[in-house]
Amino acid sequence: MIKARVTVTLKNGVLDPQGKAIEGALSALGFEGVDHVRQGKVFDLELEGTDKTKAEAELKAMCEKLLANTVIENYTISIA
Amino acid sequence: MIKARVTVTLKNGVLDPQGKAIEGALSALGFEGVDHVRQGKVFDLELEGTDKTKAEAELKAMCEKLLANTVIENYTISIA
Repeated sequence: MIKARVTVTLKNGVLDPQGKAIEGALSALGFEGVDHVRQGKVFDLELEGTDKTKAEAELKAMCEKLLANTVIENYTISIA
Repeated sequence: MIKARVTVTLKNGVLDPQGKAIEGALSALGFEGVDHVRQGKVFDLELEGTDKTKAEAELKAMCEKLLANTVIENYTISIA
């Protein structure tokens, strides 16, 4: 079994109102000097089999088809 | 300026209906053998200053107060 983590983040230049809201909330809580907050998603998955090359190709296909919106999001795959 | 990434994931044993839905969707798309999908959040932040120890303490406080719900979520902090 292969454990993998997919991290999906917004591309540079894409507005992130959620990140802005978090920035405002942190500032309201007294945390100074916090800037450029961006929120993304992380997916932890387990795949059957032991072939890491195959798993990576499959994960890439999953990202392209479902996990990430590649118009506005980047993704990184890390296999444990 | 310090760049940091905070990853927030659900604790083991906490139900993740969103992860289950993704698992179902992946299966419907023809991806076989995918199991234990869990979704989490990732925050990228920039902090003023250069003191990494201070930054880590501050990030920990941010997680405890706002970014994570420590009853059901774990968090990890990585500083670039």
